[in-house]
Amino acid sequence: MLKFYYNTAPNPMKVALFLEESGLDYEAVPVDTREGEQHTPAYKAINPNAKVPAIVDGGETVFDSNAILLYLAEKTGQFLPDGHRGALLSWLMFVATGVGPYSGQAVHFRHFALGDRTYGRKRYDFEARRHWGIVDARLAEGPYMLGETYTIVDMAVWGWASRIPFMFDDANAMAQFPNIKRLTDWIDERPAAARVRALMERHAFKPVLDEDAKRHMYPQMFAPDPA
Amino acid sequence: MLKFYYNTAPNPMKVALFLEESGLDYEAVPVDTREGEQHTPAYKAINPNAKVPAIVDGGETVFDSNAILLYLAEKTGQFLPDGHRGALLSWLMFVATGVGPYSGQAVHFRHFALGDRTYGRKRYDFEARRHWGIVDARLAEGPYMLGETYTIVDMAVWGWASRIPFMFDDANAMAQFPNIKRLTDWIDERPAAARVRALMERHAFKPVLDEDAKRHMYPQMFAPDPA
Repeated sequence: MLKFYYNTAPNPMKVALFLEESGLDYEAVPVDTREGEQHTPAYKAINPNAKVPAIVDGGETVFDSNAILLYLAEKTGQFLPDGHRGALLSWLMFVATGVGPYSGQAVHFRHFALGDRTYGRKRYDFEARRHWGIVDARLAEGPYMLGETYTIVDMAVWGWASRIPFMFDDANAMAQFPNIKRLTDWIDERPAAARVRALMERHAFKPVLDEDAKRHMYPQMFAPDPA
Repeated sequence: MLKFYYNTAPNPMKVALFLEESGLDYEAVPVDTREGEQHTPAYKAINPNAKVPAIVDGGETVFDSNAILLYLAEKTGQFLPDGHRGALLSWLMFVATGVGPYSGQAVHFRHFALGDRTYGRKRYDFEARRHWGIVDARLAEGPYMLGETYTIVDMAVWGWASRIPFMFDDANAMAQFPNIKRLTDWIDERPAAARVRALMERHAFKPVLDEDAKRHMYPQMFAPDPA
């Protein structure tokens, strides 16, 4: 059976949504990144980048949430657009290489970075808002990221969109992105999303981000200054 | 004919390498990002993210360098592995979502960021080195990123690898990544890479990164501090 290595962060949750939407059988294997379980040799043999999610599907190992979404969509023939290969790959990569990384940096410089955060916070706040604005404008043109069909690109958007209030430290931040709110509310009401929420409660991950957890998750904080 | 919107940065150059390796006919259209040409409505109709590269191939528009590599490889059937779909997608996404973004931030905090760079430089120096180390370890296992076959993942690595000395401000930085050096030297000696270098000389892009260019390229520098 397909093994799904996860924690409850946005990237694994996109893949959980696909697994639940598609009805694929899978075994969910928790990887507690605050306990450093991602750095074991056994896990790095699956994902050398020491991140979740990853899957092992028979003889195929796949890591990176967006790679997994595309792999599983192609394997099942589900949640892909009819044609429009260029648009599919463009928007999936826009989320993977832009929305995700800039959102992650915005969270880091808003909440976790050491020292003077002024410029980092400004850079990533600006870039994260710009990226989400492009997603919102796209969703003003049609119900889904690729038009009339619910696809893996919507699932990729849904993953990080849940963190918009946190990344901007603003409980009302979604009001600036009404089309993203419409899409994510629609997904949240689906039975698959309810099953993802149940999965998030199934395993007790370490709840606190203490110094030991930070050593596992942000090793650069403890590294010497570069030359 | 396929239109290729480019400047001489690492991401467009990966696509130029594929175009030259594959022998596809194309028209190269320069987009001078230091002059702000990426922000015109005409260009943003092609790539709403206002970045290069992008291609227009008949009825298909594709943006993001890694999306274009995968699109063109699938279109031509060239520079793909024989099977190994999971490995292809995993490593392509590792470069797209990890190596590229962290290398870009390392360059930014090493050379361009305003204010106190201490933590940003440390974070991105560490993460960029960690990512390149994973690429180098992978290339220690075989000649190419996917084993015995030269693929689009090698082209993706080649794009940003050329900036390793600049991102670490160390002319000898490649000595720490001997397997990456072996691969990029091999690619650099190919006739396709010589044609890419000729393309880089064909158009006179704005040579200086003055204040006006920074407004086009790093708009967050001129934005107010976020709330």
